[in-house]
Amino acid sequence: SVNPDLGSERQTASFSVERLTALLDGGAEQTRIRRAVVEAIESDPVFSRENQYFQTQNERYEAAVRKAVHLQKKMHEMGWTEDGPEYKYIYRALSGDVAFLLHRVFMRSISVLGSDKQIAKWIPLATQHKLIGSYAQTELGHGTYLQGLETTAVFDTATQEFILNTPKISAMKWWPGDMGRSATHTVVFAQLYIHGKCYGIHPFIVQIRSLQDHSLCPGITAGDIGPKMNFEHIDNGYLLLKNVRVPRENMLSKFCEVRPDGTYVRQGSQKINYFTMTTVRISLISDEVLTPLMKACTIAIRYSVVRRQSKLKPGEQEAKILDYQTQQEKLLPQLAAAYAFYFTNDYLQELFNRGYREIQRKNFDMLPELHALSSGFKAVITQHCTAGVEICLRACGGHGYSLLSGLPSLYTKILASCIYEGENTILLLQTARFLIKCFMAASAGQPVPPSVTYLAAVKHGKCPAKNKLDFLRPDIYIEAYQHVAVRLTSNTAAKLQDLIQSGVKKHDAWNQCTVQLVQAAKAHCHYIAVKNFAETVEKLETKAGIQKIMKHLCDLFALHGIFSNTGAFLHDGYTSAAQMDMVTASYLDLLAVIRKDAVPLVDAFDFTDKSLNSALGSYDGHVYQRLYEWAQRSPTNQMSPAYEKYLKPLLHNTLSKL
Amino acid sequence: SVNPDLGSERQTASFSVERLTALLDGGAEQTRIRRAVVEAIESDPVFSRENQYFQTQNERYEAAVRKAVHLQKKMHEMGWTEDGPEYKYIYRALSGDVAFLLHRVFMRSISVLGSDKQIAKWIPLATQHKLIGSYAQTELGHGTYLQGLETTAVFDTATQEFILNTPKISAMKWWPGDMGRSATHTVVFAQLYIHGKCYGIHPFIVQIRSLQDHSLCPGITAGDIGPKMNFEHIDNGYLLLKNVRVPRENMLSKFCEVRPDGTYVRQGSQKINYFTMTTVRISLISDEVLTPLMKACTIAIRYSVVRRQSKLKPGEQEAKILDYQTQQEKLLPQLAAAYAFYFTNDYLQELFNRGYREIQRKNFDMLPELHALSSGFKAVITQHCTAGVEICLRACGGHGYSLLSGLPSLYTKILASCIYEGENTILLLQTARFLIKCFMAASAGQPVPPSVTYLAAVKHGKCPAKNKLDFLRPDIYIEAYQHVAVRLTSNTAAKLQDLIQSGVKKHDAWNQCTVQLVQAAKAHCHYIAVKNFAETVEKLETKAGIQKIMKHLCDLFALHGIFSNTGAFLHDGYTSAAQMDMVTASYLDLLAVIRKDAVPLVDAFDFTDKSLNSALGSYDGHVYQRLYEWAQRSPTNQMSPAYEKYLKPLLHNTLSKL
Repeated sequence: SVNPDLGSERQTASFSVERLTALLDGGAEQTRIRRAVVEAIESDPVFSRENQYFQTQNERYEAAVRKAVHLQKKMHEMGWTEDGPEYKYIYRALSGDVAFLLHRVFMRSISVLGSDKQIAKWIPLATQHKLIGSYAQTELGHGTYLQGLETTAVFDTATQEFILNTPKISAMKWWPGDMGRSATHTVVFAQLYIHGKCYGIHPFIVQIRSLQDHSLCPGITAGDIGPKMNFEHIDNGYLLLKNVRVPRENMLSKFCEVRPDGTYVRQGSQKINYFTMTTVRISLISDEVLTPLMKACTIAIRYSVVRRQSKLKPGEQEAKILDYQTQQEKLLPQLAAAYAFYFTNDYLQELFNRGYREIQRKNFDMLPELHALSSGFKAVITQHCTAGVEICLRACGGHGYSLLSGLPSLYTKILASCIYEGENTILLLQTARFLIKCFMAASAGQPVPPSVTYLAAVKHGKCPAKNKLDFLRPDIYIEAYQHVAVRLTSNTAAKLQDLIQSGVKKHDAWNQCTVQLVQAAKAHCHYIAVKNFAETVEKLETKAGIQKIMKHLCDLFALHGIFSNTGAFLHDGYTSAAQMDMVTASYLDLLAVIRKDAVPLVDAFDFTDKSLNSALGSYDGHVYQRLYEWAQRSPTNQMSPAYEKYLKPLLHNTLSKL
Repeated sequence: SVNPDLGSERQTASFSVERLTALLDGGAEQTRIRRAVVEAIESDPVFSRENQYFQTQNERYEAAVRKAVHLQKKMHEMGWTEDGPEYKYIYRALSGDVAFLLHRVFMRSISVLGSDKQIAKWIPLATQHKLIGSYAQTELGHGTYLQGLETTAVFDTATQEFILNTPKISAMKWWPGDMGRSATHTVVFAQLYIHGKCYGIHPFIVQIRSLQDHSLCPGITAGDIGPKMNFEHIDNGYLLLKNVRVPRENMLSKFCEVRPDGTYVRQGSQKINYFTMTTVRISLISDEVLTPLMKACTIAIRYSVVRRQSKLKPGEQEAKILDYQTQQEKLLPQLAAAYAFYFTNDYLQELFNRGYREIQRKNFDMLPELHALSSGFKAVITQHCTAGVEICLRACGGHGYSLLSGLPSLYTKILASCIYEGENTILLLQTARFLIKCFMAASAGQPVPPSVTYLAAVKHGKCPAKNKLDFLRPDIYIEAYQHVAVRLTSNTAAKLQDLIQSGVKKHDAWNQCTVQLVQAAKAHCHYIAVKNFAETVEKLETKAGIQKIMKHLCDLFALHGIFSNTGAFLHDGYTSAAQMDMVTASYLDLLAVIRKDAVPLVDAFDFTDKSLNSALGSYDGHVYQRLYEWAQRSPTNQMSPAYEKYLKPLLHNTLSKL
């Protein structure tokens, strides 16, 4: 039975939830396949996450290894393959709670960076799990700046080996997943030295643990880096190398080879490396960033219609907290953002696929644009979604703060996405560098990539909106976003030039502009996200109410962005104060409109109760019962030695007196 | 030996760190007392937090109980008393990692709400720890809205007892600290019924566990609510009551009494209750909110001068990350906010003391203003400081994400302060209600409390700043903040009136304005914080460089607030776009100025390494060594059963082949 306060929300849906789900999945057939995978995974007790919130880091690790090993069997049983249509749903169905994710990165790096001979040797071994791989790049002292890595690999002509060392503590490998306890092999990135000359960073396959008894190999010191804010299931590791020798054949040599006499040969293009990072950044958006926000919205919105607190009108029943404007203003923009970025992700995927086809034809022209967009959107989407999950958590008050709500884990996990695979500020500055370059080129009449042609068309007009309804016109708000992006880019380019012309050195000038460059990069991405959402809505089927509700969400996403950054739009008078008041009015009106469909809109995400793993967010809305049942299972409800040791002696001396 | 990258930062301090520490403590004598307490606590191994990041919730609870019991002994040994000068430093020295905090609330509620007879009976028992008390107010279904609590207490004239029940699951008490496993007694808030009539919420002393063997008393179901985002050391509990009888004397009866025949008598003023909440909100700011932000700043800023990454100028050594403008822009505004709110706290304390003196003279005139300021500042400071800690965490990249940095624990703990003791949005709306009321009164020429007299003086001028240096004048920026606060309050008051005049019902109209009312309340508090900081700086000693550096921080706090909310200042043209560019220029200049003193400014907070408990933030700056040493102690570096169970069978079948 469904909590009537939740049930009533579903009866008034303005659109078909099932059709929206199919739209998000990319078709009803995809929905069917996804649900079959979810069902197969969730009905298998080995994959259960039921006790996750009660487990220690050690228990989480053990469970993740158990699941990873079991997954191999399961895939075989079910006939699922790594290139089958089910594969992309498996990770989502497991909520990422599985080990050996770096094993896949180990394999990918060999496929991309290894010679045909190396691929032929290592990939079959890895595929059959005859070894467990990891990927050892980051060091204690270096993350962002790869050129600064300090691990060395010195070529010894006499023995035809590389001698690997971490010469100081900051050179120690730190963070690699699966390396703390599981991996037998890893790809180590090290500075290559031949005859005393440094050739820069190169990848080497290094065995770190015995295949006999899993003991550390000679010269290896390795272990787990200890507790983190989340990822308890992953054994992020450290690695010290002391005169560890690997054969010449272990340097991955698709692009560079060391000949037996020590001759260094570079071959082929390294541009593809650039593309690998792009791939990773785009691929993480869906699983690691959008899914957590969609889950958080589902939990917080369902909770907000079963939680009643205080009275909106005297004499009436207590109100659902989603009926308060302030609660709507917290949650509904996050819901709109989840949809907006879902479509941004489609846009990036499509762009990426196009780029990939070009690269296969040896055409690398799209790379700078792809790099700029994937960097900028990785930063903007992770930042926005992380903030969104936090807002959802806080909006659930005390119950949101309990691990049993599921929200703390979503938050502590998504937060890491702002840091890994490129720290966000660094990424935004890369996007900004591209913008400035394109702006200069466009100003000089040179051609620029499609996503930045707008930078050439600087208009000095004013926003033409005449009333609050005009701000529900995509042409109006898209142009406003465009105007801001152009202004921030052109102003910062001008500041940069002024500084350089006044004698400030180029690097100092750049540093003095970075706060504003970051703003420009964000504005660029925000503009593209709004434009893409509006264009997506335009193309949607008009049936079953889908287009209409998506239009509302698009408007909300756009107006929330203006409402939250009024200064950027007011600055040069493009938008007047009177127009900003219209934006506010339309924005607040939209909250009340979308509130009516809030529950159907999260239902369309189609998360099962098991995948939400939340006492607040279940489909039936029986929140308080679940909190109570789950709490009773907590290990904190077992007898504590604290009573016998401390409480009893404290209370004992006066028992007779009370 | 100090890391030279950190040491060099201290040599160039523009002010005396020791003098600034004394200023923050309220005098050199206070500094001496504080350090003596810290030394006594930290040298006692029972209070060690060394293994905190490796412990389970059960282990944390046990340690907290051990510490609480030991603290009694320690206080006796040291001659510390609850009303001595050392007392306020004990909690800080323990970093709050101790049990029985609710025992104090139990005692306070009896002192405030109990009759003289009840105080005489229960306070000595509690003081001597002959029982362990708790405070059971919040229920599963009600936090904010106290009138909605569902637990009942029915008076039985025949037996002269109250019969307590939690009639449905949502009525279950949920969250009370120390109640899950420790408490023997608690104060239960319940709806009082006499002869079928409800008299509203009243407090009752209820024994929940046996003093003989700690088993639950008849009719009591209680336990721990399970894992939370932090506060693992506290046994937040649940409590179900089934026909639990307590004698008539157990209703706390300073203000209301039930006579033996069931006559209900109300006596004295209840306004003092109002004041109790004010006390709690002000008292938590220092320990629970400012201290975590000050610690986070200390950790992140020290780390940012020993972490070198990438090159600012080609050919040079890698740069300290604090030399990047974007890093400065993350951390230095948080440092300025820590100082700003430190002085706001002094302001609130002083106001509170004045209010308390008036109340003792039965003058309650200051209560509404005190309530509005304590509510608004509780919300604004917790929100600002929580965001600040998160920024510090993210600014430390991957290492900030490790529990060993100390930052995740600071964040997950401070986050709760946005929710407890009044959810922030609710509190801001209370402040807003006061503002609207005062604005109406002031507009009608009636007198209003001192903190809001400015609302009457609506000026329609323009900001008079002519160049970027003018924005370093407190009169200029204080007036800008004032202007914004007045505009937001008056505009929202106008919208509210318009809605009501157009026929919208009062409650609906209020709800439709709440997003803007929250903005007005924040602007009011922000204005007062800026004004108070500037006035504090004005009064400081000019010697030893203190006033100068505090002036810089005050400017930074003010300009950061404008830079981050440009729309509010631009909206009605009070500040022009050209002036906003001056603000930006001055703001960015200030970052470079304050960066030079960043380390001395956090050193002045005078946290010991043990109290920071951070591998990144130690005084000597040996970050990488500590991370490595601490990680080696992690339980995740013990043998895992996962190898024998899962990895060995997986790898075993092909050992011969490699």
